[in-house]
Amino acid sequence: MSHDPVRSQPLPTFPIEPDEQTRQRLLRAGVHVFDRKGYDAASVREIVERAGVTKPALYYHFQSKEGLLRAILEEGWRQFDATLERAAARPGPTRARLEALGDDLYGLFSGNVPFVRVAHTLFLGPGDTPVPFDLAAFDRSLERTIGRIVQEGLARGDVVRGEPRTVALAFGGILGACAARQLHPPYRAMDPDEFRQVLGLLFDGVLRREIPGENRS
Amino acid sequence: MSHDPVRSQPLPTFPIEPDEQTRQRLLRAGVHVFDRKGYDAASVREIVERAGVTKPALYYHFQSKEGLLRAILEEGWRQFDATLERAAARPGPTRARLEALGDDLYGLFSGNVPFVRVAHTLFLGPGDTPVPFDLAAFDRSLERTIGRIVQEGLARGDVVRGEPRTVALAFGGILGACAARQLHPPYRAMDPDEFRQVLGLLFDGVLRREIPGENRS
Repeated sequence: MSHDPVRSQPLPTFPIEPDEQTRQRLLRAGVHVFDRKGYDAASVREIVERAGVTKPALYYHFQSKEGLLRAILEEGWRQFDATLERAAARPGPTRARLEALGDDLYGLFSGNVPFVRVAHTLFLGPGDTPVPFDLAAFDRSLERTIGRIVQEGLARGDVVRGEPRTVALAFGGILGACAARQLHPPYRAMDPDEFRQVLGLLFDGVLRREIPGENRS
Repeated sequence: MSHDPVRSQPLPTFPIEPDEQTRQRLLRAGVHVFDRKGYDAASVREIVERAGVTKPALYYHFQSKEGLLRAILEEGWRQFDATLERAAARPGPTRARLEALGDDLYGLFSGNVPFVRVAHTLFLGPGDTPVPFDLAAFDRSLERTIGRIVQEGLARGDVVRGEPRTVALAFGGILGACAARQLHPPYRAMDPDEFRQVLGLLFDGVLRREIPGENRS
């Protein structure tokens, strides 16, 4: 891409700062300012001041405020996708695979609360979104990965019920509820152990089972 | 309260329209305009035009745009709370009680998508909220009701695992995931039957159980 960092040719005195560190500082500053002020009210001046770089550096790397937002969303997508790829490739029993996926996604989410808030506010809020971005693609991708783990679990015999889509919805919902508690200060946040307990209810079921051979009432 | 409707003395020619119908029209119009434009950008003029009433009617019933928002949030809270009260008082097996609560909340949510979007955007978005309102109170209240049903289920014997808080988080997360698919157009919405299936996974568990007497592997 035309705004790729020029890491092999560092030019420290060049005013546009075409290095990867500058790009990363701008991405972090953009998320911070979009989160605090909202995308519309955020100014390029505030973003570059927070990043400690010059305005031309922002235009060099991202062309515009809109380009910066697009890069932030692409980076979020890239990390999410890499997490799912790892989960799909991991071997082992279904419980361990789903727990590891939950831990990874929970960690990714907790480490990027301002990003998640920015994405949600932009795409659930009023008006048109400033850049075309398919928020629902996150869920479709999660559904595909969980679908694969569930299918393999059915073949393996440790999954006893659940369509891939319904399991993905339940899993994603539990992840969302636990993680959402970090988005808004009045909520009591949840630690990773508590999250595992909640996910464990989905694995094991809350109620006494009514199927033959398991009904102990 | 001072802005209570004066239903016993209808005064059709009075310009402030102090009746309940006018109040309800303003509440609906407020939700619609806040949802489409955002609270800050929404004007009193647009709201009264959509409601088909005069500006003085809005000031009579709600004092200000802020007062209208407060009344909208109070009305949402009132309906949510009434749904939980009904669920807590309902007798029967835990599965039926939780399913009925799920159906009721799912129905309440699907019938009020613009309201839910307004509340989320306001309280997750940037800046201070225009009126003090504790969004997390919805979750605490859900937790209390589910906690009561779970405790009664433990006593009854049809709940085999789960702390009240963890069950409430899982239940609320599944409800949220299914309902959120109606908030944003790119998502594929979920019908009540699908929602019941997803909730059923939490009740019965996805994985083969590893506890004595239930392990069939």
